[in-house]
Amino acid sequence: MRIGVDIGGTKTAAIAVADDGSFGEPLRRATGFGAREVLDSAEASVRALAARAGLDVSAFTSIGVGIPGAVDNANGIVSHAVNLGVSELALGRELGERIGVPVRVENDVKAAALGAHRLTTDTLATASLEADRPALDRPTADGVGAASGNPVGGSMAYLNLGTGLAAGIVQQGVLLRGATGTAGEIGHLPIDPAGVLCGCGQVGCLETVASGSAITRMWPSRAEYPALELFELAAAGDARALAVQRTFFEGVAAGVRTLVLTVDVDRVVIGGGLSALGDPLLRGVRGVLADWSSSSPFLASLALSERVRLIPIGFPAAAFGAALVGVK
Amino acid sequence: MRIGVDIGGTKTAAIAVADDGSFGEPLRRATGFGAREVLDSAEASVRALAARAGLDVSAFTSIGVGIPGAVDNANGIVSHAVNLGVSELALGRELGERIGVPVRVENDVKAAALGAHRLTTDTLATASLEADRPALDRPTADGVGAASGNPVGGSMAYLNLGTGLAAGIVQQGVLLRGATGTAGEIGHLPIDPAGVLCGCGQVGCLETVASGSAITRMWPSRAEYPALELFELAAAGDARALAVQRTFFEGVAAGVRTLVLTVDVDRVVIGGGLSALGDPLLRGVRGVLADWSSSSPFLASLALSERVRLIPIGFPAAAFGAALVGVK
Repeated sequence: MRIGVDIGGTKTAAIAVADDGSFGEPLRRATGFGAREVLDSAEASVRALAARAGLDVSAFTSIGVGIPGAVDNANGIVSHAVNLGVSELALGRELGERIGVPVRVENDVKAAALGAHRLTTDTLATASLEADRPALDRPTADGVGAASGNPVGGSMAYLNLGTGLAAGIVQQGVLLRGATGTAGEIGHLPIDPAGVLCGCGQVGCLETVASGSAITRMWPSRAEYPALELFELAAAGDARALAVQRTFFEGVAAGVRTLVLTVDVDRVVIGGGLSALGDPLLRGVRGVLADWSSSSPFLASLALSERVRLIPIGFPAAAFGAALVGVK
Repeated sequence: MRIGVDIGGTKTAAIAVADDGSFGEPLRRATGFGAREVLDSAEASVRALAARAGLDVSAFTSIGVGIPGAVDNANGIVSHAVNLGVSELALGRELGERIGVPVRVENDVKAAALGAHRLTTDTLATASLEADRPALDRPTADGVGAASGNPVGGSMAYLNLGTGLAAGIVQQGVLLRGATGTAGEIGHLPIDPAGVLCGCGQVGCLETVASGSAITRMWPSRAEYPALELFELAAAGDARALAVQRTFFEGVAAGVRTLVLTVDVDRVVIGGGLSALGDPLLRGVRGVLADWSSSSPFLASLALSERVRLIPIGFPAAAFGAALVGVK
């Protein structure tokens, strides 16, 4: 059994993952702010999870942690995790010393990509999901990965729609990190010179239209979940909501197109907080891709719409994937 | 010894490549138009090359062919090679039967990517280049690939600036084909909704600003080489030429950025016909990347400018790479 920990901006989630890929109910605690506090809440989550299972933490083979920011995977060091108040933290070493179990650290989106990859190539992992909800919008065994005959599931991109936008790419079962850990940072590819200034200093980045922060900007609202309000009003036919929603859908669709025209992944799994928007999100993105394909035989030949999936709502992709980091 | 053949729209080039990566002077012949004629000129090139070396064709271990269009690498079939008048041709089987030596077929840009990768990770190949011209703008042994300590040269993208724009990606020495052979087709990623209609049916594709056809459109001219005229007038300070040239540079720079933010290659080698523009091209692209970096700390951290190289003028990347296709 391994432990996977997903350290998010507000919550830290921990799960136990068995060797066969099945996993238990996530245990969630508030995330502390600052390096010491993040470490404390991670340790507390791991100990609480072990206690709930009636086990000593030493019973677990390894701990994998997914965390936002720049991660030096080889040395377990996270830096620039701005939302957590962490400028630099030797998370792997420090947590490992506290718990006495080897700790591996990965960027949260990359960890989630590993989790989504395992989910879409391995039916075992789906056994833990609610029985009345399909693992993905079509059964894994019939998916593109399985159909390609590749035993490790071909290639996949996990497109994370959170506060920002980023992707994790898995090729032949292996996470693509690239020369400097920048692989999949498609949120900062500009798509419109007439767009708005991005926090990265460029103009018209994908993230400025296809992310939670983009929706907050494009749809100012006092609602608890502006994206949900936007989708509800769009569903009710509100013209302004429909226009903003269309811009958002086009941005996500552009992200899918980017991933296929560069890496040619056989599937793009949409995850992150906004993936909870569910079917309307998937239908909207597929609608844009279908529109584009109707005027471009080239795009039509790529069957982009068929490559897009949605991660099941509630699937703890980052915690599950974190448990798999470094596991052969 | 192997033979590499590069079938271009007007010329077919063939070279002999020794096991140590050294190669002889390319032999060039006109390319026929139509499936039968393309096959005839490829066969004639191979036979002429062998005759020049005083050898029987059976003395060669294999023949690799790079050709534009969609290539089914596993079966040696090329299709949609519009400029060659070939809708479909079992080039591997037919040429193999004619010559009596195993023939492998690859898309020309992908073949050139393999050639550029070998060139930038292996000093042997550079031995055949003119002694007074550095293999790349900095010595291979000091390059990013070598510095990364990866014995097979890390990851590289070959950015082909020909009539169109496309890239070939090599990861850990292996050509990335992707799920459907679409990997590296970045020429059809739109970067400007206010751009012009692309031949692919989309609007504002990279190819509409960063390719030979883009220059022909943006700089209408009766000169034999419009791009050369454009660069000469820009060098002389012509305002209109400078503006068009800037748009072109920005498009190429956007291509570099796309390759780094998706695959995070450690180097981007610019090749294709327009790479003959030489240093002014490299300086121009690097200048744009430096400008962008000055307003984006994020981009600056990626050191994009340092990742860009230019293929040496006259290096037969596609023919050389074609000879390497399928060779372990």
